[in-house]
Amino acid sequence: MRRTLLAFTLASLFTLPTLADEARPTPTAKELLAQSRPQEWRTPDPKNLLDMKLPGGHVLIELAPDFTPLHAANIRTLVHEHYFDGLAVVRVQDNFVTQWDDPAADDEDKAHTRPLGSAKPTLPPEFTRAIDPKLEWTPLPDGDVYAPAVGFSEGFPVARDPATGREWIAHCYGTVGVARDVGPETGNGSALYAIIGQAPRALDRNLAVAGRVLDGMELLSALPRGPAPMGFYEDKSRRVTIESVRLAADMPKAERPRIEVLRTDSPTFGKLVEARRNRRDAFYAVPAGKVDLCSIAVPSRKAK
Amino acid sequence: MRRTLLAFTLASLFTLPTLADEARPTPTAKELLAQSRPQEWRTPDPKNLLDMKLPGGHVLIELAPDFTPLHAANIRTLVHEHYFDGLAVVRVQDNFVTQWDDPAADDEDKAHTRPLGSAKPTLPPEFTRAIDPKLEWTPLPDGDVYAPAVGFSEGFPVARDPATGREWIAHCYGTVGVARDVGPETGNGSALYAIIGQAPRALDRNLAVAGRVLDGMELLSALPRGPAPMGFYEDKSRRVTIESVRLAADMPKAERPRIEVLRTDSPTFGKLVEARRNRRDAFYAVPAGKVDLCSIAVPSRKAK
Repeated sequence: MRRTLLAFTLASLFTLPTLADEARPTPTAKELLAQSRPQEWRTPDPKNLLDMKLPGGHVLIELAPDFTPLHAANIRTLVHEHYFDGLAVVRVQDNFVTQWDDPAADDEDKAHTRPLGSAKPTLPPEFTRAIDPKLEWTPLPDGDVYAPAVGFSEGFPVARDPATGREWIAHCYGTVGVARDVGPETGNGSALYAIIGQAPRALDRNLAVAGRVLDGMELLSALPRGPAPMGFYEDKSRRVTIESVRLAADMPKAERPRIEVLRTDSPTFGKLVEARRNRRDAFYAVPAGKVDLCSIAVPSRKAK
Repeated sequence: MRRTLLAFTLASLFTLPTLADEARPTPTAKELLAQSRPQEWRTPDPKNLLDMKLPGGHVLIELAPDFTPLHAANIRTLVHEHYFDGLAVVRVQDNFVTQWDDPAADDEDKAHTRPLGSAKPTLPPEFTRAIDPKLEWTPLPDGDVYAPAVGFSEGFPVARDPATGREWIAHCYGTVGVARDVGPETGNGSALYAIIGQAPRALDRNLAVAGRVLDGMELLSALPRGPAPMGFYEDKSRRVTIESVRLAADMPKAERPRIEVLRTDSPTFGKLVEARRNRRDAFYAVPAGKVDLCSIAVPSRKAK
């Protein structure tokens, strides 16, 4: 029982306090999601949905073209031309990132680096974008150590600075970013990383964010770590080969991954956030009363 | 190169701005640590150092008796009587916790649950402690979403509330906590968990923190995840057997783990924090200007 109960902390770390029933225990996330309406869920645009097949299963990634349009377009081109097929996860740094790209770029035989095909070798940075009042914005009420304002926009955790009029996707757990060289324009989407630990928010505004892992995160987070300090596998046999990466739009309809994401401007998402801020039940004596941006996971589920 | 450069983000996410050389690139953590003086490092008290042997290697954990003295004493008793030897990691929930305890407590054969020996079955909660002005306090300057003040004390990441006069170790990556049943007094240290993802700060003040992983974290963080939502291995063969847990004080001196921890009240630690707040170099166009409590790892190293 004692284990079940710590377990239960995340499963039901959601509460929905009302004046009427303060004493009633918190509904769980599962309960809140069960009460959601179909129109609160969206199906990611197939042009923005990547299906990366690893030996252990599929990682689904949603691109963020409203934040990083040129990077999304370049990644679509790379994927469409099967650039990633046969490349590998080359680096896993504990509490930081899992990175995948062309292992030949690291090896002595740089001559065998895979060509980028029709994709562009460099891109404008797209590290931030102008705040667009027409786009969805679901603010969080508890502040942030790094940015003047945080919230969700189109399913992504976002930080913004009203003083500069800029916003950007935050480097939370599961965020997928574009690795680059020293020059800010040197990223092109052929080398990507996913955050697998405490949100390294110092990366914000210094790298382009490609999107977010929707499903299969454990295939990236539970890999053996490479040696410190940077986690590159010295033993090349530990690299995990990428069997394929496909864009859902390039796949026959019947074969596309079937996944839905809870809309971050939906009432149910608001209830989940509020519940996560204040959980009250027999286990929790002291509700946090606060929640930080990267502690909120946007729910997704298999579509019927 | 592009990979090396993202890699380089953590390795040298440290800068030390001075008026004299704003333009000079940030010294790396490695460089700052190389300049540290021997007296800035401490050897953990052998009474507070646990050596947990898993099939893949050793996990070293420092207990926090100044925060949770009764729990530290009970864990020492359990370890001294070899309670954990042959028990197992039973649960790995992605982006949350890895938990180890007596697998029989989960199984049908609860009759075979291991007895606690001389250890107490219940303990006073110790979820927070009174702020003691005599103890070390190294505050952080950038605030916190969850608590009025945060900083480091005796090597641990700590949150405090001056209004209540209480403080507690925060649930950051690598924090080791005491799992419990519903009643706040039901934790006894026989079931422990380590945080392996984004800091679940809502656990703060609701669970007793036993200590922190000093070394071998990847042996807990890179394990296969159990099935959602709670990560308990349904397939019992996936459980990772604990070969032994020993207290350094119970081991012959020559066999004790040799590890040193940077003092969190040392000048070098202060430089690391300041560097982490503001990194300036060719790669980083925009220094964060801030750092949150759980993004600062307290360095440790093999003692000579």
